[in-house]
Amino acid sequence: MEKAKVLLEALPYIQKFHDKIFVIKYGGHAMIDKNIKNWTAQDIVLLKYVGIKPVIVHGGGPEINKAMEKMGKKPEFVHGLRVTDDETLDIVEMVLTGKINGEIVSKITKYGGKAVGLSGKSGRIIVAKKKIKKIKTDKGEIEIDLGKVGETVEVNTELLEILINNNYIPVISPIGLDVNGEAYNMNADTVAGDIASALKAEKLIMITDVDGIMEDVNRPETLYKKLTVDELKELLDKGKIKGGMIPKAESAIYAIESGVKSVHIINGKIPHALLLEIFTEEGIGTMITK
Amino acid sequence: MEKAKVLLEALPYIQKFHDKIFVIKYGGHAMIDKNIKNWTAQDIVLLKYVGIKPVIVHGGGPEINKAMEKMGKKPEFVHGLRVTDDETLDIVEMVLTGKINGEIVSKITKYGGKAVGLSGKSGRIIVAKKKIKKIKTDKGEIEIDLGKVGETVEVNTELLEILINNNYIPVISPIGLDVNGEAYNMNADTVAGDIASALKAEKLIMITDVDGIMEDVNRPETLYKKLTVDELKELLDKGKIKGGMIPKAESAIYAIESGVKSVHIINGKIPHALLLEIFTEEGIGTMITK
Amino acid sequence: MEKAKVLLEALPYIQKFHDKIFVIKYGGHAMIDKNIKNWTAQDIVLLKYVGIKPVIVHGGGPEINKAMEKMGKKPEFVHGLRVTDDETLDIVEMVLTGKINGEIVSKITKYGGKAVGLSGKSGRIIVAKKKIKKIKTDKGEIEIDLGKVGETVEVNTELLEILINNNYIPVISPIGLDVNGEAYNMNADTVAGDIASALKAEKLIMITDVDGIMEDVNRPETLYKKLTVDELKELLDKGKIKGGMIPKAESAIYAIESGVKSVHIINGKIPHALLLEIFTEEGIGTMITK
Amino acid sequence: MEKAKVLLEALPYIQKFHDKIFVIKYGGHAMIDKNIKNWTAQDIVLLKYVGIKPVIVHGGGPEINKAMEKMGKKPEFVHGLRVTDDETLDIVEMVLTGKINGEIVSKITKYGGKAVGLSGKSGRIIVAKKKIKKIKTDKGEIEIDLGKVGETVEVNTELLEILINNNYIPVISPIGLDVNGEAYNMNADTVAGDIASALKAEKLIMITDVDGIMEDVNRPETLYKKLTVDELKELLDKGKIKGGMIPKAESAIYAIESGVKSVHIINGKIPHALLLEIFTEEGIGTMITK
Amino acid sequence: MEKAKVLLEALPYIQKFHDKIFVIKYGGHAMIDKNIKNWTAQDIVLLKYVGIKPVIVHGGGPEINKAMEKMGKKPEFVHGLRVTDDETLDIVEMVLTGKINGEIVSKITKYGGKAVGLSGKSGRIIVAKKKIKKIKTDKGEIEIDLGKVGETVEVNTELLEILINNNYIPVISPIGLDVNGEAYNMNADTVAGDIASALKAEKLIMITDVDGIMEDVNRPETLYKKLTVDELKELLDKGKIKGGMIPKAESAIYAIESGVKSVHIINGKIPHALLLEIFTEEGIGTMITK
Amino acid sequence: MEKAKVLLEALPYIQKFHDKIFVIKYGGHAMIDKNIKNWTAQDIVLLKYVGIKPVIVHGGGPEINKAMEKMGKKPEFVHGLRVTDDETLDIVEMVLTGKINGEIVSKITKYGGKAVGLSGKSGRIIVAKKKIKKIKTDKGEIEIDLGKVGETVEVNTELLEILINNNYIPVISPIGLDVNGEAYNMNADTVAGDIASALKAEKLIMITDVDGIMEDVNRPETLYKKLTVDELKELLDKGKIKGGMIPKAESAIYAIESGVKSVHIINGKIPHALLLEIFTEEGIGTMITK
Repeated sequence: MEKAKVLLEALPYIQKFHDKIFVIKYGGHAMIDKNIKNWTAQDIVLLKYVGIKPVIVHGGGPEINKAMEKMGKKPEFVHGLRVTDDETLDIVEMVLTGKINGEIVSKITKYGGKAVGLSGKSGRIIVAKKKIKKIKTDKGEIEIDLGKVGETVEVNTELLEILINNNYIPVISPIGLDVNGEAYNMNADTVAGDIASALKAEKLIMITDVDGIMEDVNRPETLYKKLTVDELKELLDKGKIKGGMIPKAESAIYAIESGVKSVHIINGKIPHALLLEIFTEEGIGTMITK
Repeated sequence: MEKAKVLLEALPYIQKFHDKIFVIKYGGHAMIDKNIKNWTAQDIVLLKYVGIKPVIVHGGGPEINKAMEKMGKKPEFVHGLRVTDDETLDIVEMVLTGKINGEIVSKITKYGGKAVGLSGKSGRIIVAKKKIKKIKTDKGEIEIDLGKVGETVEVNTELLEILINNNYIPVISPIGLDVNGEAYNMNADTVAGDIASALKAEKLIMITDVDGIMEDVNRPETLYKKLTVDELKELLDKGKIKGGMIPKAESAIYAIESGVKSVHIINGKIPHALLLEIFTEEGIGTMITK
Repeated sequence: MEKAKVLLEALPYIQKFHDKIFVIKYGGHAMIDKNIKNWTAQDIVLLKYVGIKPVIVHGGGPEINKAMEKMGKKPEFVHGLRVTDDETLDIVEMVLTGKINGEIVSKITKYGGKAVGLSGKSGRIIVAKKKIKKIKTDKGEIEIDLGKVGETVEVNTELLEILINNNYIPVISPIGLDVNGEAYNMNADTVAGDIASALKAEKLIMITDVDGIMEDVNRPETLYKKLTVDELKELLDKGKIKGGMIPKAESAIYAIESGVKSVHIINGKIPHALLLEIFTEEGIGTMITK
Repeated sequence: MEKAKVLLEALPYIQKFHDKIFVIKYGGHAMIDKNIKNWTAQDIVLLKYVGIKPVIVHGGGPEINKAMEKMGKKPEFVHGLRVTDDETLDIVEMVLTGKINGEIVSKITKYGGKAVGLSGKSGRIIVAKKKIKKIKTDKGEIEIDLGKVGETVEVNTELLEILINNNYIPVISPIGLDVNGEAYNMNADTVAGDIASALKAEKLIMITDVDGIMEDVNRPETLYKKLTVDELKELLDKGKIKGGMIPKAESAIYAIESGVKSVHIINGKIPHALLLEIFTEEGIGTMITK
Repeated sequence: MEKAKVLLEALPYIQKFHDKIFVIKYGGHAMIDKNIKNWTAQDIVLLKYVGIKPVIVHGGGPEINKAMEKMGKKPEFVHGLRVTDDETLDIVEMVLTGKINGEIVSKITKYGGKAVGLSGKSGRIIVAKKKIKKIKTDKGEIEIDLGKVGETVEVNTELLEILINNNYIPVISPIGLDVNGEAYNMNADTVAGDIASALKAEKLIMITDVDGIMEDVNRPETLYKKLTVDELKELLDKGKIKGGMIPKAESAIYAIESGVKSVHIINGKIPHALLLEIFTEEGIGTMITK
Repeated sequence: MEKAKVLLEALPYIQKFHDKIFVIKYGGHAMIDKNIKNWTAQDIVLLKYVGIKPVIVHGGGPEINKAMEKMGKKPEFVHGLRVTDDETLDIVEMVLTGKINGEIVSKITKYGGKAVGLSGKSGRIIVAKKKIKKIKTDKGEIEIDLGKVGETVEVNTELLEILINNNYIPVISPIGLDVNGEAYNMNADTVAGDIASALKAEKLIMITDVDGIMEDVNRPETLYKKLTVDELKELLDKGKIKGGMIPKAESAIYAIESGVKSVHIINGKIPHALLLEIFTEEGIGTMITK
C-alpha cells in the first residue's frame, strides 16, 4: 500500500509541472561518481515520462584537467588567470562534447530516454563573443586576454524547441560559436542560466557536490532551504558565497530575474537527489525564488 | 530515499504503457463505497498524468434498484428474466448518465483530471440493436422480449479518439442507440470489452468487489493470478465461473481475441487497487492474456 | 420552381451565417410537446448542414417537478424561495443530464446530426460557485441559503471548441461544478447567455412557448419584432417584463453586451420556428440587438 | 410554413452529398442565355454553401464561331472535319479562357462564391497529346491531321484539390498542354468526364439545352429519367444517340466506369435546373448510373 | 572550376532572398520578343528552384491593339483620352487572360515550373472600382468617363498565398472586379505595385524594353544604377520621367512606401536580365530603395 | 552573360534533385586539408539552399592517430588487426564527436547553413552490436575480439527526419550504441551507406583523396566514370579494389541494392568537387548505379 501512497504523493507535483521545462545543470565533481551518474540519468528519464521536459547542460571540470595532463599540455596563466589557447580549447571540446556529453547520452538512452547530445555550436544554440576580463591593478584597470573564453550573446531556442516537442532530451555542452565561426569555452553554470531564461523554464536545477547554499560551508545544519533573490544578492554582497558557488548564485539570480520560477542547488551525492527535490514537500537543497 | 525507490520501480511500467489506452470498467458494488470511489478517481488521474490514456466505462447496479423502488416501479419478469420497459429504461438512463456518470466526472475533476461524461448515445459511440434472448422450454426454443435491452452492433471511436487525443478522460455510461434513435440498456461489462477492442486498448481493467477469478470464491487463496484465454474458456465450460463473473469472463475473452493485450479483474476494495495492479510486479488480481 | 426559389431565398442567410456559432436555448414547456421536439431537432440538423455551428443548452422545467413528485420529494422553501437540497440536486441532475439531454441527443442523431450530450461538469464547461441570494426584510437585508443553487464563475470553451470544430453538436445541461468538485443547479437561460458570450456566438436563440416579448402578454399583436438592448432595459426597469421572461431578458442583455450579435426569443409551438426566424426576412419572434 | 418544408425536403440530399465533389459541365447554347447564366451561377453558389464542392468545366460553342468570324478567320476542313490551326487555337483560347471563363467567375463572385478561373494549362491540370483521328476511306484507313486538337493523357488533381479544400470553386476551360508546352483544344464534355473521374466525383452534371436523353428528340415525353450504363451503351450502339449528345454519352460512360456515382444530363433552360435535379426526388433530366 | 565559382557567387543572394516573394512585372514590347519570353520564363523557374517565390504580373500592350484592329474595333477617345467600352474590355480580357497569360504559363511549365494563370478576378485578387479621371479645361475641372477603366480598391492575398505556399507560380492578368461583378481594365504597373505591397514582397522587378531610369533616355550612360524614393520623386517632379515610365515610377514609389524593400527596372532585351540583376553585385538596371 | 549561363546549366540538376536527400561521406586525408574543408562546407550550404537535403557522415583517420600518440596510447593488435580497447574508444569519440564533428559544424554555420552535430548515439541513430571478426588460420576459422568495434544493427531515422524537415543539416560521427548503452567505433563508410539506405537517399557521395575507382590507381586516365553494381562486384571479386576503397565499394553496393539511386566516389582535392560532380553533365569521379 505504501507504494501507492508514494506515487500519489508525487501526483500534485506531476500535475503542477506537467509540460514544464526543467533545465538541469550537471557538472563538476558530481560528474565523476558512477553512482551519481546513474541516479541522475534514471531520474531524468523518470521526469520525462511523467510529463516534465528536461534539458541537460553539463560542465566538465576534473576530466578536462586529466586530459590536458595526459596530452602534456601545461596550463597557461596571465595575471593569475587561466588562459584558454587554441590547443586548450581543442581539448576542452574533445572532453566536453566528445566524452562527457556522450556518456550522459549513453546513460539516458540505457534507462529508456531519447537523448540528443549537442555542442552549443549546433543550431547556433549558444551565440558567443570573446569575453573581455578587466582587472584592477596598481596602474589602473587593464584588460586581460583569456584567449578562447566566451560569453553569451544570444541563445537560439529553435533547435531545442523542436527536439523538446518531439520528446527528445537535449544534452548540451557549454561551447559557444561567434559570428565568424570561432568556438569559445563557456562557463557551464552561466550557460545553464542563459538557456533556462531563453526557454522560459519552470526550474533551473544545479546538481553540485555540496548540499546547497550554507551560512557556513562546514556546518550542513546552516543550509538555507529557501532564499529569495534579494536574500541571495545580500549574501553575495556580504561575501558569504565563495568559489564555484559564485557563478551558480549569479546564474540563479539572472535566471529568476528573467522569468524562471525557481532555481535549486542540490547535492548529487544524495541518491536520487533530483527526485527528492522535485517530488517531496521538504526538498533536500536550497531553493531560490523571487 | 524509499520514495525515490518506489517512483523508480514504477518507471518501467510507465515507459511500457506510455500513450497506451486502458479501458477501466468500474461498477456494481464497488461503486457504492465512498473510499473506493475516491481511490479510483485518484488512481485514474495519476495514470493520465504519467502518460497512460484511461477510458472509463461504468455500470450502475444497486443504485438503479434503489431509484426504481423510490419511484414505485415494480420490476417486471418474463420467464424469470427481468424486462426493461420504457419507464425502466428512463430510470436506468437517469441513474447511469444523470447520477453515477456525473459523480465520477466530479471526482476525477476534483483530483485534477479533465473528464467528459458521455452516454453511449453521444457521437453514436454505442450503436445497438434490440437483443433477442432465446431460452429453451418444453415447447422448444422461444424468443423472450426483454424490452429495451440492447446488444452492440458497432462502436464508433471517432469521438473517443478526439477526446483522448485532447487529453480528456471519457467516462461512458452503457446506453446504446439504434438506427431509429431508440435507446437501449446494455451490459456494462460487455460494452467495456467492445470499447476496449474498438480502441485497440492495451489493457481492459475490471474493478469489481471480489479479488479476481478464483477456483473457489470462498477461498481467496485459490485466486488465479494469471490465466490464458484458453484456460479461462475451460473454466467457463466447466461451469467454474458463476453469476456476474460470466459476462466479465466473456468480455475478457472477446477483448483479448480482438487484440487487447491483457484483461485484469481486480478488487476495488483494496486501496488503490488500480495502481497496485499496474505498477507492481506481482499485481493483486487476475490477469488474462493470450 | 417554387422549391428552388425558397432555397435561393435562404442563400443570403446561409452565406451570412456560414461558420458562425448559434447558441440555442431550449426549455420549459416547449420541451414537453413531441412535435416541438421533432421540429427543433430537424431544424438544428439543417442548420448544421448548411454551415452553421449550433450549440444547444436545455432546461428542464416540468419534468423535474414530475420526477420529484414520483420520488415523494417535497419541495422545500425558505422565505418563499425554493431550496435545492442534495437530494433535489440529485433528481435535477438525473432528469436534466440523464433524461432530457439524452432525448435531445437521440432526436438529433435520428435526423442525421452528430450530437454529444454533456453535463456542464464535463470539461469544467461551467465553473460555478454557490449563489448567495439576498433579500430585503423588515430587519434589513438577509442572506438566504438556497442550497445547491449556483452562479457562473467562468465558462471553459476548450471542450466545446474541440467538439464544434470536429462537427459535433454539443447539447449541454445547466449543471455547474465548483473548485471542490461540488455540483450546482444553474438557471438555464443564464447559462445559455454565458456560453454564447464565451463562444463569441453570432446569435443566442431562446425557444420558449410564447411569441416573444410583448407589450401585453395577452395580446399577440403587441409583440416587439425588434428591440435594442436599451429598449429592453427600459422595459425591464418599468416592470413590463415578468416571470420567466426576466432571466431571459437579463441573459439577452448580458449576451449582447459581451459581443453576441443578436438574441432571439421565439415560440417553439410555431412549426419549425427556428428556420423561420433564421431564414426569412420577417422572422417570427423578438430580435434583440445592440 | 411552406418555406421550412422546402428546406427540410432538401435536407436528406444536403446530408447525402455533404463534402462530395460535383463536376458541372456547362456549355454550348446554354451559355448564351443570360438567364441561364445567372441561374446556374446562383445554384452553384448555393451548392457550395450547403457543403457540396462544385467544380465547373465549360465549353464555348457559338462564341468561338462569332469571334472567328469577326477576326475574318475562315474555318478550315480536311475530309469534312474542322481543323484547328495555330491561329484558330489562339482564338479558341482567347474566347474560352479570356471571355467565357471570366464571365462565369464574375457571376459566381457576384452571388457570393469564391471562384478561380483556370485554363487546363494551369498546374498542368490537363496533360494532353495531339489527337490522331482515323477515318475509313475507299483507300483504307487514313489518319487526318486536325491540327491543335488534343486528347487527355492525364489529369493532375493537385491544384484542384488545393483550391477545393480552401473553399474555392474552380472554373476550368478545356485547354490542354503537352510535355513540350504546346497547347491543344479539347472537347469540353470529354474533359469534364476526365476531371470527374480523376477527382472521384460523386456526380458529373452536364447542363445542355435539351431535356436529357430521349427516345425521340422531338418528343419530350420520351425522355429517359434513368439509364444504366449498359442501357446507354445499347442506345449508342443502336445509333439512337446523335450529334453533340455522343461525346456527352461517351463521357458519361467513362465517368461512371471510373467510379463517378452518377451522371446527369439536364436542360439549362429550365430555371434553376441544377437545384431541381439535385434537391428533388423526381429530378428533371436523365440520370445515368451503374 | 569557373562553374563552381559562379554558383558560389550566387550563394549569398540565394541565402538572402530565401523564401522571399519577388513580384515580377512583365509587359509591353518586352513581351513580343520570343527570346525575351524564353529567357524570362527560364529565369523565373530558376528563381523558384533556388528558394525565391516569384509572382508574375503581366500587361499586354501591342497585342491588344493588334487584336482590336483584326476585329475591326475603332479606338474611341474623349478629350484625347482612350476609352474602354464594353467591347474593348472584352478584347482586352481575351488578349490578356486568354492569350498572353496562357503563353507565359506554357513557357514556365515547359521549363519545369508549376504555373497558375489567373485573371485578377479570380479569388477577387483585384477588387476594383471605376476610375474617375479629372482633367482641367477652360471651363474648370471636369470628370471624364473612360468606361471600364478601374483602380485598385483592395488586393486579396488569400488565393495568392495558398498558391505560393504550395509551390505554384501565380501569373496574373491585370483585370479587376468591382462589388457588382463588373470587370475593369487596370494599369499593369500599378497592379504590380499593389500586389507587391499587399504580399509584403522583398522586390518588385519591372521588365521593360529600356535600361532603367535615365537622365537622358537617348544616352544609356546616363542610367541611374541606384535611386532613393526621394530622388525618384524629385525626378518625377522635375518632369524628367516621361511616358510609360511614369506609372512605373509611381508604382515603385508606392511599393517602397508600403514596405517593399527594393524596386528594379530592367531591360528585358538583355539576355537573362532577371538573373543578372538579382545574382550579381553590379546589377544591370535601376534599383530604387528607401 | 556567362554567369547566367552557368546558373541555367545547373537548373535541370536543381530541379531533378529538389527535396532529395544526399548523404555525403567526408573523411580520411580529405579532412586535413584546410581548403578542402572550406570548399566542402561551402558546397554543402549551396546544395541546401538550392533545395537539396544534405546529411553529412564523417570519419576521422589521421587525427585519431595523432591524438593517441599525444596521449601516449600505444596501438594494440591481435593477429595483425587493430584492437579498440576502452581507452582507445574514448579517444576515438573525443576526436570524432568532440573535434572533427565540431569543426564541420563550425564551417557550415560560418557559410550560412544550420548544422547539427550528432554522435550516432544521439536519438539512437546507429544501433550497433559488437562486431565479430572471423579469420582463417592454420587451425581453422577463429574469432578475433577487436574490442569496441561495432556493426550496424539498425538505423533510426526519426531524429534525422525531424532535423532535415526543419532545414537543419545533420553532421554525424560514426559511433554506435548497443542495447546496453555500450558505445562502439564504427566504419564511417559503412555507416554512411547504412544511413543513405535508411533515409532512402537519392545519392551517397564519398569524398576521398583519390579520383574515384581506377583500373590502375597510378594512372588517372584509367578512372571509371560510370560503373554498374554488377561491374563493381566483378572488380571486387577480381581483387582490383584495394585497401580503404574496399569498404567504400561494399558500402556503395549495399546502398544501391537498398534503393539509393547512385553512389559517387570523388576526389576532395579538386576544388568544389561536390558541385562539379552534381551540377555538371560530365562529373569528375566515379558514379555507381544499378
